[in-house]
Amino acid sequence: MGAAGQAKASDPNGEILVFTEYEDAAYSPCGIPYVHGKEIPDFERLFLATKEHYREQGIDVRYQTRVESVDTAAQRIEVAGIGPVAYDNLVLATGWDYADPGVPGGDLEGLYFVKNIRQAMEWDKVLDTVKVAVVVEAGPLGLEMTTALAHRGIETHLIDPHPWSLSEAADPDIVEPVEQSWAEMGVKMHFNCELHEFSGSGGKLRAVQTSDGEIPCDLAVISTHKVANNRLAQGAGITLGSTGGIVIDERMATSAPHVWAAGDCCEVVHGVNMVPLQGLSGSHAYAQGKVAGTNAAGGNRKYQPVYVPWGMVAGTWMIGGVAYGETLATALGLPFIVGVGNGISRARYYPGMKTLRVKLLAEPDTLRLIGAQMVGQEGIKERADFLAMAVRTGITLEDLATMENVYSPPIGALGEPIAAAAQTALASRKL
Amino acid sequence: MGAAGQAKASDPNGEILVFTEYEDAAYSPCGIPYVHGKEIPDFERLFLATKEHYREQGIDVRYQTRVESVDTAAQRIEVAGIGPVAYDNLVLATGWDYADPGVPGGDLEGLYFVKNIRQAMEWDKVLDTVKVAVVVEAGPLGLEMTTALAHRGIETHLIDPHPWSLSEAADPDIVEPVEQSWAEMGVKMHFNCELHEFSGSGGKLRAVQTSDGEIPCDLAVISTHKVANNRLAQGAGITLGSTGGIVIDERMATSAPHVWAAGDCCEVVHGVNMVPLQGLSGSHAYAQGKVAGTNAAGGNRKYQPVYVPWGMVAGTWMIGGVAYGETLATALGLPFIVGVGNGISRARYYPGMKTLRVKLLAEPDTLRLIGAQMVGQEGIKERADFLAMAVRTGITLEDLATMENVYSPPIGALGEPIAAAAQTALASRKL
Repeated sequence: MGAAGQAKASDPNGEILVFTEYEDAAYSPCGIPYVHGKEIPDFERLFLATKEHYREQGIDVRYQTRVESVDTAAQRIEVAGIGPVAYDNLVLATGWDYADPGVPGGDLEGLYFVKNIRQAMEWDKVLDTVKVAVVVEAGPLGLEMTTALAHRGIETHLIDPHPWSLSEAADPDIVEPVEQSWAEMGVKMHFNCELHEFSGSGGKLRAVQTSDGEIPCDLAVISTHKVANNRLAQGAGITLGSTGGIVIDERMATSAPHVWAAGDCCEVVHGVNMVPLQGLSGSHAYAQGKVAGTNAAGGNRKYQPVYVPWGMVAGTWMIGGVAYGETLATALGLPFIVGVGNGISRARYYPGMKTLRVKLLAEPDTLRLIGAQMVGQEGIKERADFLAMAVRTGITLEDLATMENVYSPPIGALGEPIAAAAQTALASRKL
Repeated sequence: MGAAGQAKASDPNGEILVFTEYEDAAYSPCGIPYVHGKEIPDFERLFLATKEHYREQGIDVRYQTRVESVDTAAQRIEVAGIGPVAYDNLVLATGWDYADPGVPGGDLEGLYFVKNIRQAMEWDKVLDTVKVAVVVEAGPLGLEMTTALAHRGIETHLIDPHPWSLSEAADPDIVEPVEQSWAEMGVKMHFNCELHEFSGSGGKLRAVQTSDGEIPCDLAVISTHKVANNRLAQGAGITLGSTGGIVIDERMATSAPHVWAAGDCCEVVHGVNMVPLQGLSGSHAYAQGKVAGTNAAGGNRKYQPVYVPWGMVAGTWMIGGVAYGETLATALGLPFIVGVGNGISRARYYPGMKTLRVKLLAEPDTLRLIGAQMVGQEGIKERADFLAMAVRTGITLEDLATMENVYSPPIGALGEPIAAAAQTALASRKL
């Protein structure tokens, strides 16, 4: 919808058609865990725009229609029940699917894949009857759903094959407070734990079998990683990358003329080392959609390599960061120096003050920042955005060690933990 | 105390003596308005370190002593009641005084200059009896005290000779919501209003006479701007600058050998145009103190030009920014292009979401950022810190227009208002 809106804005006389298999176009799936967790009172709030809104904008959305195939030579798509539809320019925004858990029992009733809002409304009623839930994999959605289910009072088990939560993004010291807060909330964590089977009776889930043994449960939330939904692109012979995502250039153009792509069906490059990435945030997808929509309508915008600032609430903490932590940098063989700064979010004596831990990684020779990790309870998102720009523009530990910071008791402390972390990293070098 | 601590850290065998006229060394005067406003429950919390703490650190603090003069040739100071004290290196950290309001009645009982914590404790008892207060000048402390007194239920008048609050830092559109919230809190504002006299009877303040007429009151809070306390430096023949602050080099060295200076008694240069500035925040003073202390103890650290991120709570809003807003840039004849972005602090549907307005100014040719202004209720401090680094390192509107941002419903929205403001500024250029 970002691509459609931007295409219409760029070329107001253009005819914009959107095909979607869903009943709705504009809602926030990212809000679903918070309704389940009773932090947001109802699903209705998650709808962002009405169907009338798009009609008034001049965007023709065809709901509950399935595109069967794309013919890039003939410049047309084949729509089930409708037939061929010609295009001048096509934007593929087919998104992602959950990776198949790859174990028996995947068709049992009681397996919940969080995505479609209408299904989420039904599942929310089911949650009222659930006593024990298993969350499969501690990725971002797994952390959100674990927190939400525990908050709702359901006995929640989290299983993950790695030694700690969010291991692909976060270092263990960053998630340690999160896991401690989950333990206090009654969450049972099972790390280094392989999923073996969903087992049930009468077609209904009764337990999850793991390398840690059987976990009897009523519900399993499947939050495996995102894989690109590349069916249409693959069928059309469009080039796919090593991640399975559609390869696009900086204008979001695919290998086929007049075909663009945006969002989780694509892969984009990491700015630090040009590694292809797939499966980023809604903010990334939306920004890519706007670039693809502009260009599909005859404009000329470029998308930049990404550094991937991230942040979320998990347990009673906020965690976040950008680019590489110690774990990932070590795994990739990137040399780095590191420093940690502990700080506070307001003056020490001001009510509501929260602690904050910032870790910075930088290249040992140039001192350019290559990543950050944070855990706290305020100000994580804004710092992650800042540090993403810092990585992108070549800001160094020396810049950050001498940064100025706002000091005002209700909103900021005398010292800034980003500066403290940079100072610590620099001092480590002198030892 | 920052200089003393850093000097001791740099040279643990060094003898460190601190002379202060105060009864205490380490407390936060910045917290005083919030105790008066009943946001912080007591003054005891504002003490940062005990006298024992400094003794244990090996820092010898001489309380309630007055330094009469400095002899830089003989390398000694003259202390009242003690006599001469020799030094190898001297750090001047004599701070600031409120500018003299320059009107009759300045010696009346009932004029409150917020600074000394023991006096603040006494004034806090007086506030229980105050019915009407006048705050003289809408600088940072004036905004804090206006908010605090109104919050405490005192009828509060704010008078200022300029057309809006904080006019030396903030644009009128930024403080407009603040002034509206004050109006709702019952604050009476008098702008474009000259102070004529403090009038009283029996030695006690009864009214403030202004160009708007007489304001009967029990108390006047004098929050005129800060002037450098340069008495010792001037007496010693040390070079002072155009602001009245001590001139220092990048190592915080004054014009006299072995004499350093830090904090509000100095002037430092603005990084955008090298204009000298005096009277910054406690965070600036502390950072300068650490540089001066390191160098006084034989180390070698440099202080950078400043860009002055600022932020505060006023009324029911947070405001902040960095470097130049439209008003100041126009007054200084700096050419600029400008863009405003309106955004939100969390997902639109997430409880506690607050609106946020960001204005960015940039050089028209290079598109380098030269300033920002913000008003909102969350995330102002962190964005001001970010944008200060952006101004310092030459980040452009094009960088910010394509910035990545964390999207997670409880902590960040799909779009970032900094990016929106940059996009708006760039679009304005194409028109």
